[in-house]
Amino acid sequence: MKILLTLSYVGTAYCGWQTQKNLVSVQSVVQDAVEGVFGKRYSVTGCSRTDSGVHARGFRCTVDIDAEAPHIPEEKLPIALNTKLPYDVSVLKAAYVDDSFHARYSVKSKRYEYVIHNSPLRDPFLSGRAWTVPIRLDEVVMDNAAKEFIGTHDFSAFRAVGSDVPDSVRTVFEASVRREGDMVIFSVSANGFLYNMVRIMVGTLVDLARGRLSSDVGGIIESRDRRNAGITAPPDGLTLTEVQYD
Amino acid sequence: MKILLTLSYVGTAYCGWQTQKNLVSVQSVVQDAVEGVFGKRYSVTGCSRTDSGVHARGFRCTVDIDAEAPHIPEEKLPIALNTKLPYDVSVLKAAYVDDSFHARYSVKSKRYEYVIHNSPLRDPFLSGRAWTVPIRLDEVVMDNAAKEFIGTHDFSAFRAVGSDVPDSVRTVFEASVRREGDMVIFSVSANGFLYNMVRIMVGTLVDLARGRLSSDVGGIIESRDRRNAGITAPPDGLTLTEVQYD
Repeated sequence: MKILLTLSYVGTAYCGWQTQKNLVSVQSVVQDAVEGVFGKRYSVTGCSRTDSGVHARGFRCTVDIDAEAPHIPEEKLPIALNTKLPYDVSVLKAAYVDDSFHARYSVKSKRYEYVIHNSPLRDPFLSGRAWTVPIRLDEVVMDNAAKEFIGTHDFSAFRAVGSDVPDSVRTVFEASVRREGDMVIFSVSANGFLYNMVRIMVGTLVDLARGRLSSDVGGIIESRDRRNAGITAPPDGLTLTEVQYD
Repeated sequence: MKILLTLSYVGTAYCGWQTQKNLVSVQSVVQDAVEGVFGKRYSVTGCSRTDSGVHARGFRCTVDIDAEAPHIPEEKLPIALNTKLPYDVSVLKAAYVDDSFHARYSVKSKRYEYVIHNSPLRDPFLSGRAWTVPIRLDEVVMDNAAKEFIGTHDFSAFRAVGSDVPDSVRTVFEASVRREGDMVIFSVSANGFLYNMVRIMVGTLVDLARGRLSSDVGGIIESRDRRNAGITAPPDGLTLTEVQYD
């Protein structure tokens, strides 16, 4: 038996989702909370490895419980777990699922949003939650460029150097840029993402809008060369917003 | 000569606006930033004393400069000061004003907003920025009750015990409660506020909606007795949003 949890968290204080030696991860505080409620340490598997400083709404993870686990009705689990969690992590929903369900491998699509605060003056309320870019960005230029991400491509140019997943082909279902006042928001959904892929996409769109790149997105994808893409945007503006399963 | 600054700040890390011994205040970090830019310590006067944990957008303060101060064009001051300020305080605007202008005494009206997150599950993104009330609140009941604050009244029942301002009469221009999804937002403007007045107003509206008070707002005002009002809502949800001068 597994429990599928839906989480929301502010990632600023964490080394990311994944547990790392001597660092505090979201996974470890969830595991601690589960232990606090069930009286036993169970393994927790996330849908994704978010980076340090990256946030999530609608993150999914499973808890591998066993026959010894006391039965707690699923509607009571969020509040029970939240009393054991720090203020920056919250369980929104819990459901018992079959053992065949896998938090990562069963994912059909994930959506990320990236918030750029496009203003010469920083906003204290957005600290840690947006990337402040002082130069005025043209969101129409960025939206048109973002459309070129859509489709099945080898995204080697959009992954961190040194990452070594053998298959760098991903299918992007949707990609768009919109403006809401001082906010420029990039939204992207795909069947999967390479390491730092969204942050490099954002850095590339911003660098294109700032006139710092000579090639267009299509050309950068085709080159399969990280050096042709833009900078890696800071983690602050990035939120995993949605995970869909089959 | 004075400089009128418009500030935005997240108050979570501060003891409030006002400088207090051995504590970090917003006033002290602004004074430090002014010293960093002008090379001399000048006195800074705020429009209001916000409590510890209370936030502001559109806070006003004046800096008393003298003839020795280098002339910096007002449009360059926000960025210059922001480079010397911590991430949770930002200068939005600066203007040179006459010596006769007083940041506090020249105030005509101030507006506060208070955000209640009305949900059984806490939201990590609202931590420190809203009061989470799990029981469903009726915003129409609260809005009707809020309307009774409007007018010129002795608000003795809505100030912290022990505060000793001689005149407890204030004029409330507007007061309303609205719902935006899970958020219940109280907005109030007045010619001035007593110590903890907005937080006691909010606590009273919530206690009324939860059926914990026997009297209505009109009766509580009339009683001039703090014990008849509701609890003092936590500072987290409170933001000073607007200050108007003559």
